Amino acid sequence: FPSRLPNVGTTVFTVMSALAAEHEAINLGQGFPDFPCDRKLIASVNEAMLADRNQYPPMIGVAELRNGICQKIQNLYGQHYDPDSEITITGGGTQGVLTTILACVSPGDEVVIIEPAFDCYRPAIELAGGKTIAVSLQVTRDENGQVASYEIPWDALAKAINPKTRLLIINSPHNPTGMVWQKTDLDRLAQLVKNTSTLILSDEVYEHMVYDGAAHYSVASHPELAARSFLISSFGKTYHVTGWKVGYVAAPSALSKEFRKVHQFNVFTVNTPMQYGLASYLADASHYLNLPAFYQAKRDFFGAGLAKTRFKLLPTPGTYFQCADYSALNIPEAQLNEADFCKWLTTKVGVAAIPVSAFYDQPTESGVIRFCFAKQEQTLATALQRLQSL
Amino acid sequence: FPSRLPNVGTTVFTVMSALAAEHEAINLGQGFPDFPCDRKLIASVNEAMLADRNQYPPMIGVAELRNGICQKIQNLYGQHYDPDSEITITGGGTQGVLTTILACVSPGDEVVIIEPAFDCYRPAIELAGGKTIAVSLQVTRDENGQVASYEIPWDALAKAINPKTRLLIINSPHNPTGMVWQKTDLDRLAQLVKNTSTLILSDEVYEHMVYDGAAHYSVASHPELAARSFLISSFGKTYHVTGWKVGYVAAPSALSKEFRKVHQFNVFTVNTPMQYGLASYLADASHYLNLPAFYQAKRDFFGAGLAKTRFKLLPTPGTYFQCADYSALNIPEAQLNEADFCKWLTTKVGVAAIPVSAFYDQPTESGVIRFCFAKQEQTLATALQRLQSL
Ligand SMILES: CSCCC(=O)C(=O)O
Ligand SMILES: CSCCC(=O)C(=O)O
Repeated sequence: FPSRLPNVGTTVFTVMSALAAEHEAINLGQGFPDFPCDRKLIASVNEAMLADRNQYPPMIGVAELRNGICQKIQNLYGQHYDPDSEITITGGGTQGVLTTILACVSPGDEVVIIEPAFDCYRPAIELAGGKTIAVSLQVTRDENGQVASYEIPWDALAKAINPKTRLLIINSPHNPTGMVWQKTDLDRLAQLVKNTSTLILSDEVYEHMVYDGAAHYSVASHPELAARSFLISSFGKTYHVTGWKVGYVAAPSALSKEFRKVHQFNVFTVNTPMQYGLASYLADASHYLNLPAFYQAKRDFFGAGLAKTRFKLLPTPGTYFQCADYSALNIPEAQLNEADFCKWLTTKVGVAAIPVSAFYDQPTESGVIRFCFAKQEQTLATALQRLQSL
Repeated sequence: FPSRLPNVGTTVFTVMSALAAEHEAINLGQGFPDFPCDRKLIASVNEAMLADRNQYPPMIGVAELRNGICQKIQNLYGQHYDPDSEITITGGGTQGVLTTILACVSPGDEVVIIEPAFDCYRPAIELAGGKTIAVSLQVTRDENGQVASYEIPWDALAKAINPKTRLLIINSPHNPTGMVWQKTDLDRLAQLVKNTSTLILSDEVYEHMVYDGAAHYSVASHPELAARSFLISSFGKTYHVTGWKVGYVAAPSALSKEFRKVHQFNVFTVNTPMQYGLASYLADASHYLNLPAFYQAKRDFFGAGLAKTRFKLLPTPGTYFQCADYSALNIPEAQLNEADFCKWLTTKVGVAAIPVSAFYDQPTESGVIRFCFAKQEQTLATALQRLQSL
């Protein structure tokens, strides 16, 4: 039978993790921590199981968790969401993305994404029968021709948005580049979509990883944007449990209503004891408030080590990813394309990374690869030793 | 923006559970146990969490669980599935259904379902752009005009299947009627789809609830059918943990390949510690082999009590649902339609049940409602007292 996703293979994250395992490379590819989560969080889930919280939770999620999420959003971003009509617990951020897209994109609708983009957006749009319109982050280069930074492509965005644009997908802090949107960016975006019927999907799963004292600007901090946005976040990255697959979508009730129609026939509900465990853990704000300092130390440690090589570091104001330009390495492999360079780095140097080109649909080479620094210092140190040998 | 599911409200299960809670009724509506799951299973999950199995599992599911599922299927149904290319762990049965449908139904394709049908099939087909062709189980009636049994509508099925039929959805043991398919039924089905390109989605989440010494006939027991089937099952019902949301899809590799393309962009992966916990628990076959006797005792206890009323019991060869015709009750409410009768029963008698009419798209009244008997004996006894007062 004809494939619904003829151009789709296995995601690059799975492929690179498998290659890393096969070659016993240090896996700085797929984004996940190699250190344990807090035992308190485990104890909370275990308690929930022992308290027999093992049957279907409410379809929209357990009240304790939805309430906690509303409080967090209110405290951090100042926006009030109603826990009963505006918050839905999902099976992770990815499920929130597909469900949002299925809920609001009809065949023929256009969806604007900004590349490099996380690889689940495009196939989700395809499954909904929508048309993906991709614009690219502007790449600025330094005097040596190496990538210096990424900028939001305002002109291209303005051109891309038209009456057929049902949805615009944004993602800050941004995977893979680590760039973060500023308050002025949100203002500018609000201007752009004003008087259009474009909705926004704001993927904010790295919301608690913004460094150097800066703030994360959520769509929830901008009432005009919040009124037309699906805010997607997840606990996996914040609490070092990427395998637990619990996230949420916050959206005005009219949007949440449509979201839930699809949600209930996608997964119906999400793991009950995990939801209760996360709810009690979320009540202590220090667990996410301490996260920037925790990861900033890792970013700085890894960055300092990488600075001793001929990799050129890109700025990392957010996420747990460090991007680096390898084009000035003094080895023949510096001429390889990103995918081949990452394969070589994994199999021959023993450090796995992700080619940024994998986040583009059309071949786009910038000589930049992504390292995940959500690792124990010892792991990062060993990886650095290997990278410093280049 | 235009709704993708304009005709969809909140599922009847959620609505009736909320009504039951509001009126403190005994909830025999939505299907879930009111007794604890095995502490051994909880301990297994807790062990997995403490062993730091909290990061992304493989996209297709953890090997230990996929291996265990293959062994179970082989032992019970004689079919060999390859754990690496033919088994995918899902976030429950419902997610398996939507993902299967998105993976193989293209806009314009027809999908045949047999009503009464579980309520997630139709919206999933709609989201995929497919066309639902519903045929109805034949209802046989006794001399008093009450429903006596349900039969597979072979003639209607034969008429419904045509070159546009991409998928046929079957479900045995059947929710809500409890009917089970026999080996001869599978043979007949195989004849029907032979020489067509129709695939089969076989929803077998009640596979371990078949009574009176009878066997469950899985599509996996029929090689010809297995070759074109997505076999969907789940651990929630079998292990008394409906809130854990872990299931699986077994399908030949060509089908699994397409399934996984969608799966990876729907949920990406499924809860890691739950998968490990279930894997060790699954290794002891007695946990599912003892299930028929366990539930048969409940069915018989509840049935014996209901037999003392003017409800007419329908046969329950499988599932944890007892259907009953209420049309001969000697009260004015016996004239109500099923939905109103269930509301009345919940709010005034204090026992929640599900109208079988909710499993049909077009208004179809047969005077039959569904009780879930997956409850402690004390719960069933109290419900029976109330029902016996009618
Ligand atoms: C869902 S894939 C794994 C993690 C991730 O988000 C990434 O590495 O970009
Ligand atoms: C997914 S809804 C709840 C359980 C169920 O399957 C049913 O009651 O029919």
